[in-house]
This record gives sequence, C-alpha cells and structure tokens, in this order.
Amino acid sequence: MVEAVETMDGWCSLHDLRTIDWNAWKLASESEREAAISSFTKLVEKWDAVEEEKNGSHAMYTVVGQKADLIFMFLRPTMNELNELETEFNKSKFAEYLIPAHSYVSIVELAKYRERKDGVDPETLKGTQARLKPILPKWEHICFYPMDRRREGNDNWYVLEKDVRAELLYEHSKTGRKYAGKVKQFITGSIGLDDWEWGVTLFAHDPLEFKKIVYEMRFDEVSSRYGEFGEFFIGNLLKKEDIAKFLHV
Amino acid sequence: MVEAVETMDGWCSLHDLRTIDWNAWKLASESEREAAISSFTKLVEKWDAVEEEKNGSHAMYTVVGQKADLIFMFLRPTMNELNELETEFNKSKFAEYLIPAHSYVSIVELAKYRERKDGVDPETLKGTQARLKPILPKWEHICFYPMDRRREGNDNWYVLEKDVRAELLYEHSKTGRKYAGKVKQFITGSIGLDDWEWGVTLFAHDPLEFKKIVYEMRFDEVSSRYGEFGEFFIGNLLKKEDIAKFLHV
Amino acid sequence: MVEAVETMDGWCSLHDLRTIDWNAWKLASESEREAAISSFTKLVEKWDAVEEEKNGSHAMYTVVGQKADLIFMFLRPTMNELNELETEFNKSKFAEYLIPAHSYVSIVELAKYRERKDGVDPETLKGTQARLKPILPKWEHICFYPMDRRREGNDNWYVLEKDVRAELLYEHSKTGRKYAGKVKQFITGSIGLDDWEWGVTLFAHDPLEFKKIVYEMRFDEVSSRYGEFGEFFIGNLLKKEDIAKFLHV
Amino acid sequence: MVEAVETMDGWCSLHDLRTIDWNAWKLASESEREAAISSFTKLVEKWDAVEEEKNGSHAMYTVVGQKADLIFMFLRPTMNELNELETEFNKSKFAEYLIPAHSYVSIVELAKYRERKDGVDPETLKGTQARLKPILPKWEHICFYPMDRRREGNDNWYVLEKDVRAELLYEHSKTGRKYAGKVKQFITGSIGLDDWEWGVTLFAHDPLEFKKIVYEMRFDEVSSRYGEFGEFFIGNLLKKEDIAKFLHV
Amino acid sequence: MVEAVETMDGWCSLHDLRTIDWNAWKLASESEREAAISSFTKLVEKWDAVEEEKNGSHAMYTVVGQKADLIFMFLRPTMNELNELETEFNKSKFAEYLIPAHSYVSIVELAKYRERKDGVDPETLKGTQARLKPILPKWEHICFYPMDRRREGNDNWYVLEKDVRAELLYEHSKTGRKYAGKVKQFITGSIGLDDWEWGVTLFAHDPLEFKKIVYEMRFDEVSSRYGEFGEFFIGNLLKKEDIAKFLHV
Repeated sequence: MVEAVETMDGWCSLHDLRTIDWNAWKLASESEREAAISSFTKLVEKWDAVEEEKNGSHAMYTVVGQKADLIFMFLRPTMNELNELETEFNKSKFAEYLIPAHSYVSIVELAKYRERKDGVDPETLKGTQARLKPILPKWEHICFYPMDRRREGNDNWYVLEKDVRAELLYEHSKTGRKYAGKVKQFITGSIGLDDWEWGVTLFAHDPLEFKKIVYEMRFDEVSSRYGEFGEFFIGNLLKKEDIAKFLHV
Repeated sequence: MVEAVETMDGWCSLHDLRTIDWNAWKLASESEREAAISSFTKLVEKWDAVEEEKNGSHAMYTVVGQKADLIFMFLRPTMNELNELETEFNKSKFAEYLIPAHSYVSIVELAKYRERKDGVDPETLKGTQARLKPILPKWEHICFYPMDRRREGNDNWYVLEKDVRAELLYEHSKTGRKYAGKVKQFITGSIGLDDWEWGVTLFAHDPLEFKKIVYEMRFDEVSSRYGEFGEFFIGNLLKKEDIAKFLHV
Repeated sequence: MVEAVETMDGWCSLHDLRTIDWNAWKLASESEREAAISSFTKLVEKWDAVEEEKNGSHAMYTVVGQKADLIFMFLRPTMNELNELETEFNKSKFAEYLIPAHSYVSIVELAKYRERKDGVDPETLKGTQARLKPILPKWEHICFYPMDRRREGNDNWYVLEKDVRAELLYEHSKTGRKYAGKVKQFITGSIGLDDWEWGVTLFAHDPLEFKKIVYEMRFDEVSSRYGEFGEFFIGNLLKKEDIAKFLHV
Repeated sequence: MVEAVETMDGWCSLHDLRTIDWNAWKLASESEREAAISSFTKLVEKWDAVEEEKNGSHAMYTVVGQKADLIFMFLRPTMNELNELETEFNKSKFAEYLIPAHSYVSIVELAKYRERKDGVDPETLKGTQARLKPILPKWEHICFYPMDRRREGNDNWYVLEKDVRAELLYEHSKTGRKYAGKVKQFITGSIGLDDWEWGVTLFAHDPLEFKKIVYEMRFDEVSSRYGEFGEFFIGNLLKKEDIAKFLHV
Repeated sequence: MVEAVETMDGWCSLHDLRTIDWNAWKLASESEREAAISSFTKLVEKWDAVEEEKNGSHAMYTVVGQKADLIFMFLRPTMNELNELETEFNKSKFAEYLIPAHSYVSIVELAKYRERKDGVDPETLKGTQARLKPILPKWEHICFYPMDRRREGNDNWYVLEKDVRAELLYEHSKTGRKYAGKVKQFITGSIGLDDWEWGVTLFAHDPLEFKKIVYEMRFDEVSSRYGEFGEFFIGNLLKKEDIAKFLHV
C-alpha cells in the first residue's frame, strides 16, 4: 500500500473573482456609486481590522484581461467565517454592480515530507504556525492557478512510493528557492474541497517572475511528468486608497 | 465474462444547488421577501415532517464559494416524489429569487462485494435497511462530489475480476473506517441516472476532515488507478431557524 | 479493410428537452397561462392523432433534476416532418415560457450483424418493420443517453473484424434480454447526424431498472473497453390529462 | 522530415448558424416582421446575384434540433468579402431577431496527393478550378461537421510518410465514390483559420445517406485510427420562396 | 535534471476580443452612436501616439465568424499599463455596446536556444531589442492562437534534453523562414500568465498564407508530436478611418 504524506493545515482560503458590470455602474447615479464605493471601502476596512488582529488576511488585485476585474484572496480560521464574509460581500451595495466570475476553496497547507532529525514535530514550531496562518504580502502582482498531480498510465503520482515523491518535491523546492525575494509562494490544498487538488498563489514585484518561475519549474520531473495545470489568473495590486480612482467614471 | 457485483438499492436521491439572485432579492419589497422566506420555511417544515415519519430525509447547507449559495440533498422512496418535491420548490415564491446551479440524480446504494458466511442475505438485515433509507445527519459541514471508475488502457476497472475489485474495495473501506466519528459517508449510485457513475456525500464536524479523508484515499489503488472525480461542492449547515438571518438584507 | 455492418434504418427521431421559465410563467396572467396550456394540449392531441394513424410516435416525460423540465421523443418518417413539428412547437404560445435545454437527432436503427440461415432479408419481415417504425411505450419512466464506440489506442472498435464485433454485440444482447418485461430499449443511430454515434432510449416501470441494466452492461466487453457515454437524462411519464396540474401555479 | 502534402485552395468559406429569438419575433408588430422578412429576402437576392455571376455561392437550410434554427454556408473569393457579407447580415433588420449560434471559417481545398502521369499541374485544369470555386447544390439536405487528423501516441497522422497518407486517403476516396449521385461532398481546410483542421459539408437528397456514408467511412483506417470529429449539424433546404411561410406566426 | 531554456522577454501583451451588441447599437440614438464612435476614435489616437513614441504598439482587426467582432492586440512595457488601457477602454462610451469575448495575457518572448560563437549576449543586440519591443505591422490580416508543448506519455517535450529541443526548434524555424515576406510571426510567452503556454500572432497580406504555414508546420516533429493548439481567431485590418463606416447602421 502506498503511504500518503502527512500535511499540516492552517487557515481556510477563498479566492473570489468578480467582473464589474460597467454598464450598470455607469447607469447608476453619482450618489449610488458613492454609496457603493463607501460600502466596499467599509468592507475592506473590516477585513483590514481582522488582519491587524491576526485573525485572517486578504489580498485585493485588479485582474489583467477579461477573466474578471477583481481578484480577492481571503484567509480565515474557519469555513464559516469565509462563508459569512462572502455573504456579507454579496449583500453589499457594491456587489450589485459585480458579476461572480470564479472562486476557489482551499486550506493553507504545508507538507511533512521529510522527518526532522531532532524529532521535533514541525507543526509545533513558531515558524510553521506563522506559515500556516500567513499574513499575505502586499506585493505589486498576484498569480493564481490550481493544479493536480497526474494519474495517467505510467505517469501516476499516487502510485509512487513516499520517498520517491519526497525526493521529487525536494528537487522542485530547490527551483523555488532560487526565486527567494522575487516570488512568494503560498500552497493551499483543495482535495475534497474544490475541483483541483491544490491552489498555487504567487506574489511578485515584477510579473515577469511568474513566467520565469513557472517556466523553469515545468522542467522539474514533478511538473513535467506529474503536473496538470488549470486556469491562470494574474493581477495588479489595488490599494484601498485607489479604489475610488479605479471605479471613477 | 466479467461478473458484475450485486448492489442493494434504497431511497432515490436528488442533490439540488441554487444560486441566490441577490439583486432581485434586494429589489423585492420587504413584504415580498417575507412572503418568500415564509414560503421557503413552510417547505422546510413539510420536508421535516416527511423525515419525522421516516418517509424521506433531507440536508440543507450554504455553499462556500461561487458555485452556488445553497445545496440541498433530498431522499425519497421514489423518483416521482423527488420530481414533485422539486416542482413544488420551483413553483414556490422563494424560487423566484433562485437560479438553478446544479443537480444530481442517484439512488442510495450498498455493494454486496463479500458473501456472508452465515448465508443470510444482508439486504434483509435491519441495519442494512436503515443504511438504505438513511436519515441524513445534521452535522456542521457537507461535501459532495461525483465519481467514475476508470476505463482507460491498463487502468480499466470493468475488466477486473470480481474478487480483485472486492479486495481493492475492502482495502479502501479500511481507510474510510479510520475516520469513524469524524466523517459520515453516503454512496449513491447514478449509472443510468446521471452523468457520473456514483455520488459521494460526506458529512463532518470539521471540514478539514474532508480534505484529510479524500487525500488519504487517493493513494488507495482503487482511487489512484481507477478513480475519476468530478466537481467538489462544500457547504456549512443552514438551520431552519437561521434562514431569515441568512437572507436578511 | 475492415468491413462495416449493414444497418436497417427506420423513422427519424428527435429528442427535445425544455426548461420551464417559472418566473415568466408566474408573471403571466391566468388567461395567458390557460391559452398556453390549451395550445400545448392541442399539439399533444395532434401528435396523438399522428400516432394513432401509425405515421409517427412520441413520448412526453418530466425530467428529474435541473437539466430540463420536460423531455420529448418524437418519431416521424422524415427529417422534414420533425423540423416542421419542432418549428410548430417553437411558435406555440406554450413555447413562450420554455427555454431550449438540449436536443438529439437520430434515426431508429437495427443492426444486421448475423445472417439468417433461411436467407430471408430480415428487413422484409413484418416484425422488423414494426421495430423500425415503433410506437413508443407509455411506461412510467424514460432514460436517454448518447454513446460512442471507442477508438483509442488498443481499444478501437472500428479496427475490429466484423465477426469479433458481432460476437461482442451478441454477448451484450444477452445481458439486455435478461431485462425483458422490465426495460424496453430503442437504439437510434446518429453518426453523421449529431455529436455522438448512437442514442439509447430506455423505458421502465421502475427507474431502478435503468441503474441495474446499465450497470450490468458496463461489464460487457463491448462497454467496458469500447463504450463511451454522454449525458444521462431520466424522466417520469407526463400524461396529457396531467399537464394542467403539472403547470398549475 | 515528414513531407507535407500540397493543397490547392479556392474560395473562402463561412458557415454561419443562427437561432431565432421566437419570443422577440412574436412580440414584434406585423409590420416590423414584414420589414425584417423583406430585409432578409433582399439579402438572399443579393447573394443569388453574386452566385449568378459566379463570384461566390451560398446555401441556406433550417437546422433540425436545438443547435440553431438556420445554417448558412457562404463562399466568396476573399475573407474581406465574407466579413462584409457577415457584417451586412448583422446590421440587417432580420438579424435583430437572431442569436448567433455557431460559425466556421475555412477555405475550399483539394489535396494533391498523387502526381499526374501526364505532368500537367491539376490546378490548371478547368475541372479543378470549378471544384475550387464551386456553386453549391440546392439539394434537400445539408450536413456539416469539422474534423482533425489525430496526433496521439501510435495514431499520429502527421508522422506518417506522405505515400502512406496518400494510400490511406485513396482507399477512403473509394468509399466516398460509392455514394456518387447520393452525396455531394465539399472539403474546406481550416488549419490556421478555425479550431478544427477541416470542415466537411455534405449535401444529399435523403438524410439517411449522411448516416450511411459517415458510418461506412468510420471503418476506413484514415478515420478509425486518424479521425477526430466535432459537432454535427444537419438541415433541410430553405428556399427563398418559403422564408415567409417558415417565419409566419 | 532537465535544463530549461533561457528566454529573453520584452513588452507585455494583451489580446482583447469584443463582440458588438448590434441590437443595443441600433437602439441607440444617432448622437449616442456618434459619441461612442468619437470616444473610440480618441482612444485609438491615444494608442497611436503611444506607438509613435515607441512606448507600445497595437493592432486592430475585425474578426471573421461569430467568435467576436473586433480583435485588438496591445503591447505595453508593463502589466499595469495594459490594465489601465483595458480599464479605460471598459469605461469608454463605445464599450457600452461591446460584450467581452475573449482575452489573452502574455509577454513578448525570444528563446536563447543556441549560444552565439562570438560570446555576445544576444539580449544586448539592437536587433534583439527591436524584436522584444516590436511595432506591430499593419498588414491586411491577423491570425492568433495559443499553444502548449505536449506532456503526454512518450510525447513529453519537458523531459527532452535541451539540445534535442534546440534541434527540433531549429528545424521548425526553417519552415517559418520559407514564409519570409509573406507571414510575420510574433511569439508571446504565457506560462504563469494565462491558460496556454504560448501565444502565436501572425500577420499576412493573404490569409491563405496562415493556412499554408500552419499546415506545413504541423508536420514538423515539434508540432506533430509536441504541439497542442487552442482556438484560432482570424481578422481583417480595420483602419482608424474605416471605423465609422464599419459601425454605420
């Protein structure tokens, strides 16, 4: 029997993408638009307060291309809190001008592929806890995509022995480390929660780094033979103070 | 010729997902919304009464993410009763504010992979009957996904001999049993009824258990080589007494 | 060169699925709804008259789940008659409240896999003619799905010799015969007419029989190695006299 | 290096499918409908005039099933002319009641698989020119589908040597020739122009011939191992003089 | 470990396709249409000015077939500029009559497969810089399609050694060079940015050249065994001075 790998699991995560109904937005009166922007800004302030108290985190970016106009990533301790946040957003004045475009449900995840020599359970470490309940960076660009490990003929990740998988993932992590300072990566697991097995969220100062890292990683055996990739979404940081300008018509 | 496995079949099942049209909901007058909530509450009470009389069962959850806002699972003795229930729901005042998001038709199923040594037909047992006509738990979280057994090149479930399949399924069931008390699993068969071969509905107190069980099971040969999985939907329990609050705008 | 199998072809067939726009239906005035129901009933009576004269046949069922609300199967001697029927339906008052959900175009088909020892051309037999121009049963439940024969690597139906295909289909037919009296099966060919190669329409008194027969057949080599299946639709008989009740709001 | 086959290319082709918005059509006033029909008839007359001058050709059929209501095939010397024709149609009064359903862009193509013994370039022949700039027949039925040559594992058309491909296509053409007088076939190439590699348009007096020819051809190696097929659309001839009747409500 | 190939990266690219809502356009008043055309023309002039200053480039074509009515390709130094351009377009009067049809995000890319013998870094060359920040030609026709390199069984591009890939690409480039003067090709990389790995944009005077080059290239091993292709879009040049005519109703 093939042995699964233990995971350490943190905050619940919701990626939420919305398209702006520009026609409805322009048809709205000046005061309606102001009320909508104000309702949105208040939500963002509420989310900021949660982040300040380290009870969650969030990211807000405008999306390049027509897949959506806005991408949010929300982290909360529970699925119930994510659901409440989402419902509150749906009920807001601003949401009257938004069309749901895509969403993704997952949980922040770290893998325990390698045992520590000192016998310490890594989950108990302060650093691990910080990585399981991360405050998302406010870097200039975001990239999000879901992925699976392939199960196809001779390229079946789930029939490999645990140490083979550990080795392949270790090699892969070396590629990732080359981008330290340039790309911050968050892995969220979604097996049993959404349509793909994992979500990958990257932050960068320069979006070219997304292309470089994902391209280079594609040659790692773990990707070339065992990776299946879904839709890619990329966005530019939208600061709270720029909301009104972004929405000005 | 490869021998099929006998199944024991119970109640008919309908998974029904709906998205709330929040804009229409907010445009409705206070009294219209009250009428809609009242129409919905009356339906839920009717469903509760059916459950109390053990003539069926149902589950009601809010969905995390944008795939839908509400997920219902309905169990009834016949397809006609499911159809009537669905049509009554469609005609209700509340349904005027709902957009159909997804549905799944199946029948509660237990497999007879292993013969009992005592020669008793398991279908006649009281415990089996209870499992074929189950009252769904009101646990905090639901997870639903459809699946197929793969028929692809060397990974073809349907050309395996019956005892090989029995052995693989028995191994798989051992993984499931580890989650006793944490995850309750209902299998419904949909070959000949809907687009996938089976539906899997899980209930848990902690949604992390969905991720853990589905992840661990993916390494069982029956999944790694022979499982194909569809969309995953997860939700949080919506109690009847919380409906008005959930819909309050 | 691999030899094709001769087919005997009968009436043209159209599966037509429609979703009711319940909101529009409820917004209509009582008299508009009456006019719509009346227009629909008149169409059904016209179809009934065609069936009585053995110039065609039809089936009318309500669909379980959200794929549609109504499924019709129409048989007519020519594609032009099907097209006229469809256009007349589209122009009817009732169709103003219907949204097209799905359709499937095919031709009733019987295969001539085995030669008769007596040298008689089976197409000339009275029984064959009745099967090529069938009056559809008014059984309680319908199941419809399209299918292909697989052409993939070593599982390629179309490179098999004719007698191998005949043998596999003969084995398959034995499974079908076990369900005599429980399931009535109609095969319609759609190569060159619609997106799949064949349509399968089953009628049963008990919808559980759909699950049993399709499950058992999946282990026949002709399905396990050579079958590809599309969407499944199932429905409950809608009698003409129940139309008004079904549509009552 | 595998050698490509030279093609001879003729007129540009646009398949254009439209669905009638029957509700909007019925809501229009009698005079609006008359204006729409008149605008449409004028377009058809314009297209007829082009055809008479042998500067293009077109076909107009009603579609069986819900994929669309009308299918047009337009041939013109240039893409610009096709684009202008399409834009003029889009701007017409009649188009206000039509919903775009599907389109396909390609170029009439003949393959030069075999060299002529007399050394004459076949492209210079009068018969070839007529086939590259064909006047479409006004036969009773149309069938359109796109296709690819497969590139999958051992079934990869594009790695076969040119003479192997020529032999397979020659065998295939013999199947086609059996249907002379029953089926007229037009091949249009769309590599680099639309989502599939070729479009196949068939005309027949009896739609059963579509089923027969496509079925029989599926056993030719070029199809069984190397063919991938898209959606199939079939239609019945709509004569100019029958437009008003077809649209009468 | 398989070695990735270094790429040289230039301007950010956005392909943006829009469908005209002709019904809304015709319902608009003459003066509204004039205002919309004027808003659009001003945007084009702004884009022209950017191009003149060599701070970006753009292409504007009408699309043949129903996939869209307009295709734009925008090049800018940063993703932020692309996002601003897109948002300004979305807010424009003209966009009120447009429906988003498709988009593609990528970055102009040149591969460094072969090392130069003179040791000079090609990225520093003036010619390279011009190719990384290209002014798009105003040729009569455009063709755009996305593509992947295949990772499937024995046809896995990403497990090939670097020099094998270099050799295959070199062979491929020879096919491309045959079309010098007839087809101008721009490769944009989208790994980590959009759903496919590369975008290919071709310009030609004669659209038949798109068919010829893509067909011939399909026999190159790099395509026949390792290419996967997405949707193809083709269009005809729309000059600024022809906008009003194109939109005239």
